[in-house]
Amino acid sequence: MRVVVIGATGTIGKAVVQQLAGRHEVVNVGHNSGEFRVDIASAGSIKALFDKLGPVDAVVSTAGSAVFKSFEELTDADYALGLANKLMGQVNLVRLGYRSIRDGGSFTLTSGVLSREPMKGSASISMINAGVEGFVRAAALELPRGIRVNVVSPPWVQETLDALGMKGIQGMPAMNVALAYVDSVEGKKTGTVIEVRAFA
Amino acid sequence: MRVVVIGATGTIGKAVVQQLAGRHEVVNVGHNSGEFRVDIASAGSIKALFDKLGPVDAVVSTAGSAVFKSFEELTDADYALGLANKLMGQVNLVRLGYRSIRDGGSFTLTSGVLSREPMKGSASISMINAGVEGFVRAAALELPRGIRVNVVSPPWVQETLDALGMKGIQGMPAMNVALAYVDSVEGKKTGTVIEVRAFA
Repeated sequence: MRVVVIGATGTIGKAVVQQLAGRHEVVNVGHNSGEFRVDIASAGSIKALFDKLGPVDAVVSTAGSAVFKSFEELTDADYALGLANKLMGQVNLVRLGYRSIRDGGSFTLTSGVLSREPMKGSASISMINAGVEGFVRAAALELPRGIRVNVVSPPWVQETLDALGMKGIQGMPAMNVALAYVDSVEGKKTGTVIEVRAFA
Repeated sequence: MRVVVIGATGTIGKAVVQQLAGRHEVVNVGHNSGEFRVDIASAGSIKALFDKLGPVDAVVSTAGSAVFKSFEELTDADYALGLANKLMGQVNLVRLGYRSIRDGGSFTLTSGVLSREPMKGSASISMINAGVEGFVRAAALELPRGIRVNVVSPPWVQETLDALGMKGIQGMPAMNVALAYVDSVEGKKTGTVIEVRAFA
């Protein structure tokens, strides 16, 4: 399969590329680097990417920004960033990209554990992640030609916790999280929120 | 209690007002009519409403538009309408209104069954409804002074099905749906998605 990984330079994205490489032709797409680039907050940038890519079998998105900040401090701009980037950016990958997906191909988006298990500071991110999940459940009913769409809800990633110096939260190595994306790409699921549990 | 019902002229809103009246002082807020009006898509309009209202014990929102249309036909503007109105409109009621809520008071927002049980045409609405639910779960952790926030997820309302001439879907009378809002206002719940089941 020809599999496009958007967000390929991120912590999860790199692990997904590693897990898929060798079994598939993987096309890495970054925000600021690489042969293929995209700003998912821009519909024009997404259209340009798919024009350049040509036909593909699967698109994996591990991209998307949203703001973690206390409820009191979250600004209009913070909410708008998450809506335009992690939510509508990923929605628009499906809306603007599905005509480039071969029959029976798939999209795999990313939400996150804060959708179901919020914490202080996650009001915006929890909203965004849940929105991505609601979209995926519904859009799966209407994609043509057997095209599938799922969303992986990762737990806290160990490498991220280490980088942030956060302790006391159970993390999962990115290479393990990446297996959920492989399952979505290679399996038959559609409309599914793949909840990856650190305590599984 | 002094309870503000936003969307008081709608099918569910009218029923909520009927269920609350007699037990509480109910303030009706409409979009186009009544002493108190608000356009929830406008932060300025929300601020003006709360300035005019003064202190209140509870805010119920049965307001919020989003577009039901096939995945293929949904436009950027359709998504933007739902994001600005039913999603951020309700989020902004909490963000801009909580300082007007008395200690231990509450917000009760509205999502809908399409969040969890999508159908063809609901890609945007399912996204929006799920987003409201994600926000509520998280924001509840940070509201000060014992202020609560819940979201009611109504099933299809019988009066709406009748008005649309839709058959073959199980509906629930608005007066029954309204009891879930009363439960949120008068009870102790917070951060809860109150799923009202037609098949309960």
